[in-house]
Formats: sequence, structure tokens, C-alpha cells
Amino acid sequence: MKLSIVLFDGVTTLDAIGGYEVLSRIPGIEVDFVAATRGIVAADTRRLGLLAFRHFSEVTATDILYVPGGPGAHALEIDEPFLAYLRALDATSTWTVGICNGVGLLAAAGLLKGKLATTNWFYRERLAAHGVTFVAERYHRDGKYVTGAGVSASIDTGLFLAQLIAGDMVAKAIQLGIEYYPAPPFSEESPADAPAAVQEIVRQYEDTVAREQLHLVPPFKGMPIGTP
Amino acid sequence: MKLSIVLFDGVTTLDAIGGYEVLSRIPGIEVDFVAATRGIVAADTRRLGLLAFRHFSEVTATDILYVPGGPGAHALEIDEPFLAYLRALDATSTWTVGICNGVGLLAAAGLLKGKLATTNWFYRERLAAHGVTFVAERYHRDGKYVTGAGVSASIDTGLFLAQLIAGDMVAKAIQLGIEYYPAPPFSEESPADAPAAVQEIVRQYEDTVAREQLHLVPPFKGMPIGTP
Repeated sequence: MKLSIVLFDGVTTLDAIGGYEVLSRIPGIEVDFVAATRGIVAADTRRLGLLAFRHFSEVTATDILYVPGGPGAHALEIDEPFLAYLRALDATSTWTVGICNGVGLLAAAGLLKGKLATTNWFYRERLAAHGVTFVAERYHRDGKYVTGAGVSASIDTGLFLAQLIAGDMVAKAIQLGIEYYPAPPFSEESPADAPAAVQEIVRQYEDTVAREQLHLVPPFKGMPIGTP
Repeated sequence: MKLSIVLFDGVTTLDAIGGYEVLSRIPGIEVDFVAATRGIVAADTRRLGLLAFRHFSEVTATDILYVPGGPGAHALEIDEPFLAYLRALDATSTWTVGICNGVGLLAAAGLLKGKLATTNWFYRERLAAHGVTFVAERYHRDGKYVTGAGVSASIDTGLFLAQLIAGDMVAKAIQLGIEYYPAPPFSEESPADAPAAVQEIVRQYEDTVAREQLHLVPPFKGMPIGTP
């Protein structure tokens, strides 16, 4: 079984890695990180590089298509070759996963029309423009489409999908393997529970800081890089 | 404020990324990924490459030293140059963080002698050999040393440290930014709640599969890699 995780400049790392850390532990799975161009992809912070070791033309079929989000995803919503790639890979997949505003990329590609989906707290109003009905859940399944809320929801979404694919025992073993018995230091149980001032800070961050950050030059730009 | 995340061959990615995703959002923080050699570091699955864009001699002081774990950490427990680097950087740090069996690396370096620390479920018995007392907590602070349980505990640990460094409002904004309102599909609340059969599966995985996996050749070995 093949898992293809799509990377792009400005991805939010935990969107991708939460699901990766879970799904890569399904026995027999093969994981590829794929991007339009092979090489280092700079995460949204510009301080982390992730290796996309396949380019799009090398991965033309998959079992699980996995699309994370991040501030870099906004520009891709109108990138027709990127969206065409998602459509082509989705046509071969058994499962298609969107996390955070990566769900917006699936929606912009026309893959979620008429479906129910979740997405991150700050993106939820935008799904309707693509004919998608937002549901306020941590993760949601509509047919083969499995969508997750923001960033860290990739872990819960991954466990849910692992359970669907490999059953309870495997999914619980993965939960123990990654020790996912969360205990956040604060008692808020949903984004709506966050104090209004905190919501405003984050809304501004998402609207401006996160996108402006993408203009920073990564410290590893142009660096000669070895592979092990 | 400078955060230095140590990478090594066979690191468990979420050990590093959970804390990175939280702490990199503290306003004004600067993040470096550092390893003995500059270049791509292969994660424990061999299917993900992370970029260490600094080598040890480039980072000689830091505010937060952050040491993740993974099956690759076992060999480093007797790697004297590696342990000496941890000691040297720790001598400059305001905070030193260990996650999962990365706590074992801090212990092997002699940094936790006489202290209380947590670590992952399968490593807990091993701390005593280094004069460290294990405490069964999701995260624990003893002076400047902040330790976390396995893998995904890096997120809770990161939020706890963000709160110590930057206060409640910032930490809650980060929690909302990464939407950390977890809802795992299973009701187990601690590793001890996992069914005995599941505990046995994971114990075997940790003892053999995870380490044998390190002998697999990453698909990106020797690949020419561009940086953005």
C-alpha cells in the first residue's frame, strides 16, 4: 500500500508529519514525499527543510493521496497544473486525505463538490465557494475522502484512517507507539473555547504574519546538501 | 531567543516536529536544526529526510537545547563526541528539553543526574542506570530541564514550555494556531490503558522492527538535492 504525501513551499510541517508518523507505521505501507520539483521544500517558518524525493511525474498512482495545508497552500488554489496533479492522483486513490487548509486544495481541485468536509478553524467559511459543506469535526469521512481540522488534527485523522485500513489492534498499537494520550496544559476543548483575544491574535497571524513569513529567505537557500 | 533542535540518523520525526511546531511560533524565536554533519538526516522510517542546515561547530550556544528521540538514539548513548556536544550546548542553555528516549541521551550525557524526568513508555526502566528518577507524567520540569513522554508528547511539552517562556496568552494562541484540541478515536487515556496484546506488539516493534528498519537504504540516498 502506497502513501503519497504532497509537499509544497510554505507547508505547515505538523499538517504533514502528524499523519505521516501514524500512517507510516501501518505494516507494509510505503511512503513517498512528492512535490512539483524534487528537492528541499521550505516549511512555512522558513527554518525547516523537508525532502521531497519524488517529483510529480514519478508518482502517477497511489493508494492514499495525502494533502497537508499551510500558508503556502493559498497560492496553489489557483495553480492549475498543481490542481490537475491532485485530480489525476485522486483518480487512482483508494483514500484521499486533506488536512487543515489542504482540504481547500482538494476543494479547489473540484474533488469535494457536494461533499461534507472539515478543515481548520480559520478556513471553514471558505469551503462553501467550492460547493463543499463544512462540518465542525476533528476529522470526517465522506466516502473515500477523509478530512481533518487544523495542523495537529492530522494525528487524530491519521489514527482514524489507520483504523479503517488496518483495524483496531493496529491503530491502537500505533497510538501506543506514538504515545498519543494527549494532555494539553490548558483546558480549552475546541477552538471556540479559546478566549476571544486569543482568537483575534491567531486570526491576524493567519491573515498576515504567516503569509509575510513566506517572503523570508530560508537560511539553507542555495546550500550544497548531501544525502546520507 | 534561539532554539536548537538536534537531529541524528534514525530520529523519530514527530519527537522533533511536535515541539518545533509549537516553539517556532513564539514571537522572535529563531530555530536551527543542527546535526554532527550538515545535510539530509534520514528519519527512522527511512522514508523522510529532514534538513540539518547547521553542523555542531556552527552552533556553540543556544537558549533552548532540544533533543528528540528515536531508534537511532540508542547508538548515540555511547557516542562520546555526541554526548560532549550535548554537554557543551547545555552549559549555555536557559532550557534543555528531552523528548521520548531523547531524554536517555541527556541522561547518558550526565545532565540529569539526581533529577526527576519522564520519558517514553518503553524506556522508563532505563533512566535509573544514569541516576535519574522516572516520573510517569506527560511532561515534567526539574529546574531548567523539561522532559516529555513518547513522540506526540512533544506537543504537550512544547506548549508547557511556551507557557513558561511567553505566558498563557501566547501559549493559548499557539494551541489555537495548531488546533491542539485532541480527540483520538480510542478512549485509552494512558499507555497503561492499552490492551496487553497491543503493549506486546509495540514492545516487540520497539525492540526489533524499529532498529532493523535503520538498515534499510533511504530511497533518496546519494540523490542530488537542490535547495530553494
